Amino acid sequence: MSDAPLDRLKARLGEVSDINSAVSLLHWDQEVFMPPKAAEGRGQQLATLSGLAHRLFTDAEIGQMILQLMDKGDLSGDDAKLVSEAAYDYNQATKVPEAFVQKFAIAQSKAYEAWVAAREASDFKTFQPHLETMVSLLREKADLLGYEGSPYNALLGEYERGMTAEELKTIFGDLAPRQGALVDRIVNASQQPDLTWLDQEWDPDTQWDISMDVLRDIGYDFDAGRQDRSVHPFTINFDTKDVRVTTRIHPKELFSGLTGSIHEGGHALYEQGFLDKDRRTVLGQAISLGIHESQSRMWENMIGRSQPFWNRYASRLQVAYPGQLDDQSPEDFYRAINHVAPTFIRVESDECTYNLHVIIRFEIELALIEGDLTVAEVPEAWNAKMKQYLGLDVTDDANGCLQDIHWSHGSMGYFPTYALGNLYAAQLFETIEGAIPDLWKQVEAGDFAPLLGWLRSNVHEVGRRQTAVELIESVTGKAPSADAFMRYLEGKYLPLYGLG
Amino acid sequence: MSDAPLDRLKARLGEVSDINSAVSLLHWDQEVFMPPKAAEGRGQQLATLSGLAHRLFTDAEIGQMILQLMDKGDLSGDDAKLVSEAAYDYNQATKVPEAFVQKFAIAQSKAYEAWVAAREASDFKTFQPHLETMVSLLREKADLLGYEGSPYNALLGEYERGMTAEELKTIFGDLAPRQGALVDRIVNASQQPDLTWLDQEWDPDTQWDISMDVLRDIGYDFDAGRQDRSVHPFTINFDTKDVRVTTRIHPKELFSGLTGSIHEGGHALYEQGFLDKDRRTVLGQAISLGIHESQSRMWENMIGRSQPFWNRYASRLQVAYPGQLDDQSPEDFYRAINHVAPTFIRVESDECTYNLHVIIRFEIELALIEGDLTVAEVPEAWNAKMKQYLGLDVTDDANGCLQDIHWSHGSMGYFPTYALGNLYAAQLFETIEGAIPDLWKQVEAGDFAPLLGWLRSNVHEVGRRQTAVELIESVTGKAPSADAFMRYLEGKYLPLYGLG
Repeated sequence: MSDAPLDRLKARLGEVSDINSAVSLLHWDQEVFMPPKAAEGRGQQLATLSGLAHRLFTDAEIGQMILQLMDKGDLSGDDAKLVSEAAYDYNQATKVPEAFVQKFAIAQSKAYEAWVAAREASDFKTFQPHLETMVSLLREKADLLGYEGSPYNALLGEYERGMTAEELKTIFGDLAPRQGALVDRIVNASQQPDLTWLDQEWDPDTQWDISMDVLRDIGYDFDAGRQDRSVHPFTINFDTKDVRVTTRIHPKELFSGLTGSIHEGGHALYEQGFLDKDRRTVLGQAISLGIHESQSRMWENMIGRSQPFWNRYASRLQVAYPGQLDDQSPEDFYRAINHVAPTFIRVESDECTYNLHVIIRFEIELALIEGDLTVAEVPEAWNAKMKQYLGLDVTDDANGCLQDIHWSHGSMGYFPTYALGNLYAAQLFETIEGAIPDLWKQVEAGDFAPLLGWLRSNVHEVGRRQTAVELIESVTGKAPSADAFMRYLEGKYLPLYGLG
Repeated sequence: MSDAPLDRLKARLGEVSDINSAVSLLHWDQEVFMPPKAAEGRGQQLATLSGLAHRLFTDAEIGQMILQLMDKGDLSGDDAKLVSEAAYDYNQATKVPEAFVQKFAIAQSKAYEAWVAAREASDFKTFQPHLETMVSLLREKADLLGYEGSPYNALLGEYERGMTAEELKTIFGDLAPRQGALVDRIVNASQQPDLTWLDQEWDPDTQWDISMDVLRDIGYDFDAGRQDRSVHPFTINFDTKDVRVTTRIHPKELFSGLTGSIHEGGHALYEQGFLDKDRRTVLGQAISLGIHESQSRMWENMIGRSQPFWNRYASRLQVAYPGQLDDQSPEDFYRAINHVAPTFIRVESDECTYNLHVIIRFEIELALIEGDLTVAEVPEAWNAKMKQYLGLDVTDDANGCLQDIHWSHGSMGYFPTYALGNLYAAQLFETIEGAIPDLWKQVEAGDFAPLLGWLRSNVHEVGRRQTAVELIESVTGKAPSADAFMRYLEGKYLPLYGLG
């Protein structure tokens, strides 16, 4: 196997990877440290560098190098996978012509501005024409990318390759009524958690210190990353050895900063876990957004909202806030942090209702892309579904169909990955509980290394060698479905609400 | 005047400027926030992006665009200047072939490693072969760049375009004995400042707050920049609206963090002062390192080490350190911060001895490049000059010719710009004192706006429209010389040491 042509391809792709790392750093800095007046210049720098990365990656020479390597057919294992994944990315990137990318970017920026104003005024009407443009551009984009079945599959494939609208309809169609029924029982349960003790001021610096400790405990490597503050928490990497997280801390919220840190920490553990030898290559990348989200949700919810976790950390918080938490038991923490209450806002919603928010969005955007719903009908459809799935009467568009940024960015096919992340997480976690019988003892002892070790070998180090469905099937022995997640929810929440 | 071809050139140069901004951000982050394990990846990102900026800038198409614009000859004013400056940069960049740049970079990195070890062991012998390579490469580089007179002029021109070795010999030849004689009188003066009260612990957070206040006071725009901590203080810009500084704070040093902040603040005020319309063009850049340094040294020394400045800020420090500075008068601060004492180490030296350190280095590197000194003879030459100019017997190479990083980086022609900065600053400052009669009253009142306003109009906004010598001559009416600086030193230090 002569590697000279492969090495040349790797060098070229490495260059593109380095530029994308610089783009990520420009983004990170913008969210974390950039002074306000720098915004215009930063926008220009981002446009130039992103454009350059695209231009260099879609260079015809790279296409020829890939073709030649595939034609020769003498590669195997990782090398073959690297080339076929590069070929996939190359085809995706070259299917959409530069002119369309520019047209789309202009529409995006107008739609985003209109969305900010419309949400401010809680007036869908002013956003409507922009959303109409975005839907029509997204259908055009689906045609450019190509698809089988629903045009929605082309868009979904950008985030969750291999997943289809048809499959999602089956999975979500099973999930929604089961989850809805559970929420219904919980809301009407007579045994509700006491939340009054949470109504205090929680020193932000102390919150910060706790979140840093917990990140360290779960295995986040601070020599290969750092935590900072930002308005919206996020995880970003410039390299497997430089994966950074941010968090947001409110003095009135005891848990949201910490759970945010654990969530981003879960994302970061994934990216810190790619193999060294995959650095600067397509193999050292996330499989899909759903798998990415499975890692953050598993750490946040299955670990960070578990009783054993709070058996360990309740005292850490009690020591940190002297006199503020003396009357609380670990069970009180566990009950409070798992409080279920339907809300209008997705990002404020709990584990039991979260997927229902996602399914509402999926059903609406699928209908928009397939032409079964007009943009003008979105608020009505939204409000009807909120009533149906969550029992809530939406008061206004700001608390309804205008709450998310995604559609203004032209991101459709993105939302389902949030719910898939929850399902993947539950499915993986059932396997993990079988593979590590002492898991909960270890969590209670603050020893997260066996869990992280399992995730490293079975998920993180896979990189892009499998698709999400392939990974779930090979690791758990089953196709993605709602079952494990429902078992997890019911196993946790029925006893919690005295519905056992 | 049709601007279409000019706009095309500007767009191309703007792209290069954006990449260079990303390179600067990668550097800034590396010094300020990057986690340790990211070093290797960051090195690769920097190499890719720097190489890309060079490749895009030296593209033959850019050369043709410049040539066509110059040939047409219908540009005037800023447009003509922009093209001629771009032509200058393009010629400089294309004179040195890629192969040489790579050879140089490899030698640099080996020389740097050897220098670190040699300084650690205080053993020049192990660094000697690497310095020999660097000198030979620098002579080769001078030949590639071309020069009149001394080959040193080619190297000097990279940092201080238009200045020559011949002129430096004249200026420094005049300066050295005058400055040496002054230092001699000061060292032997019977009246020496009391420094015993400085031997205390100075809370670092308080030092930080004071440095932030003073930066704000002198006009540094925190909406277009920020201050952070780093091992070596520096100023860097990604855009005229994003110019950042760093400082270093020692708990045992009351003044070094503050003077460092003012020094970097002076650099930053310069870069925040480029014209908006020059953004992303060669005109919105520093004229030379000497002019850059004139701005930092003026704010640090002429303002930050003046009696009127301390008349204002002594009480600020007294309030900040209750019980620690009660017995000190503003005069005590002024005397202590201007304490003169010859030292082996350039970066620790005071205003009166600093240039002498620079002149030693200039004389040695000039002799090396002109072939009048062998590398083996450097330690001996160094020690003899330290005795001659500063009256010190160098104890070892670490405190002698191995102290600076510059030569290991292959930077020769750089040192003189430090001394030129001092001379330019003094010459400009004499003009300023004439133009703003109330200057010292304003400084004492904490009103730095008139001084900054003058610097904006006469220095900052010039960008690259003039060379350093042109600017000094047009603003002060005189060619650069040692006179203003010696008048400044004698006017300040003779009374300070009772030598009036």
